[in-house]
Amino acid sequence: MIVTEHIDFQTKGNAEMTDLTAKVTAAVERSGLLAGVAVIFVSGATGAVTTIEYEPGLVEDMKDALERIAPRNVEYAHNERWGDGNGHSHVRASMIGPSLTVPFSDGKLMLGTWQQIVFLDLDNRPRYRRVVVQIMGE
Amino acid sequence: MIVTEHIDFQTKGNAEMTDLTAKVTAAVERSGLLAGVAVIFVSGATGAVTTIEYEPGLVEDMKDALERIAPRNVEYAHNERWGDGNGHSHVRASMIGPSLTVPFSDGKLMLGTWQQIVFLDLDNRPRYRRVVVQIMGE
Amino acid sequence: MIVTEHIDFQTKGNAEMTDLTAKVTAAVERSGLLAGVAVIFVSGATGAVTTIEYEPGLVEDMKDALERIAPRNVEYAHNERWGDGNGHSHVRASMIGPSLTVPFSDGKLMLGTWQQIVFLDLDNRPRYRRVVVQIMGE
Repeated sequence: MIVTEHIDFQTKGNAEMTDLTAKVTAAVERSGLLAGVAVIFVSGATGAVTTIEYEPGLVEDMKDALERIAPRNVEYAHNERWGDGNGHSHVRASMIGPSLTVPFSDGKLMLGTWQQIVFLDLDNRPRYRRVVVQIMGE
Repeated sequence: MIVTEHIDFQTKGNAEMTDLTAKVTAAVERSGLLAGVAVIFVSGATGAVTTIEYEPGLVEDMKDALERIAPRNVEYAHNERWGDGNGHSHVRASMIGPSLTVPFSDGKLMLGTWQQIVFLDLDNRPRYRRVVVQIMGE
Repeated sequence: MIVTEHIDFQTKGNAEMTDLTAKVTAAVERSGLLAGVAVIFVSGATGAVTTIEYEPGLVEDMKDALERIAPRNVEYAHNERWGDGNGHSHVRASMIGPSLTVPFSDGKLMLGTWQQIVFLDLDNRPRYRRVVVQIMGE
């Protein structure tokens, strides 16, 4: 059986992190399914999903690491062509990736105790975001 | 229901990017399934899949970012042992990852408007590549 | 049909790599399923899964690349708050990601010949680890 849900939210951009764990957990509970996977997917090229221990220190530390991989202030061919100044956003999003697959069993996501599902808004401006939660199971 | 397809293509290597979106879309349509996921998987250790806004600027920008993570001209223990000079290719591929899971609904992949599914050939020479598209749904 | 298994093992931490391929292969065989996907998922915020050609050279090369992305000896806000000195572990794990989806067909994982499924223990100390293998198919 397959259930498709969405999570809609406002972000501030600039590597802001949003904790989606409670909403994904609720979607799995609403599905009534006991075993399967929740696929969390970002429709859009400047956002990404991963897991992390969601606490303010690591939110800052991820920003620093993203600056190492794709610094904001180097030259991007994307910016020269399109002028929207978010070349670094695209590169960062492609590196981390738009999809995450989390298994569940007995109706519960199999996350670690200190592990949250997070959305990273890597764009350079506030965005209204929609994340897909596709639940497949039995 | 599960449908397995392959996409076969020639690449040039050296971080060349191939847009697979049209072929994955066609595979989902051929499957006749309405809701589910398409798993795109690279069989091989020097390729990777992700999504990106596929335009020439970002193709170049990804190359620069990959050079930051795993530069071509630093020492690799892999190269010392195997002599094929593609240590950087392996490291880059493992960082980005070989699998991508894209949900679909109403028979359509839930990608953003400016978001394409791409294969990155990170090897240091042209390759003939086969990417698996496994479609699961109902 | 869905089958959930676990792989339990001891690690040394510090970017140690464990080859899980044989155990995932055995789990798929035990499931009796012919086509589907195996989702490999790390429950925990300082481990990651990916694929690589598992050989000692690349094990070292991955350590060097992880040092580039999230060096051990820079300042982490996480360390200032929590004092466990593993800020770099968290950042590295979130970058590589906790989930990997590998399709199988005819009861066999569709990996390349030189491609293994590996767990990276990015924590800064030995850990006892449990990795989930969720098999979905028909």
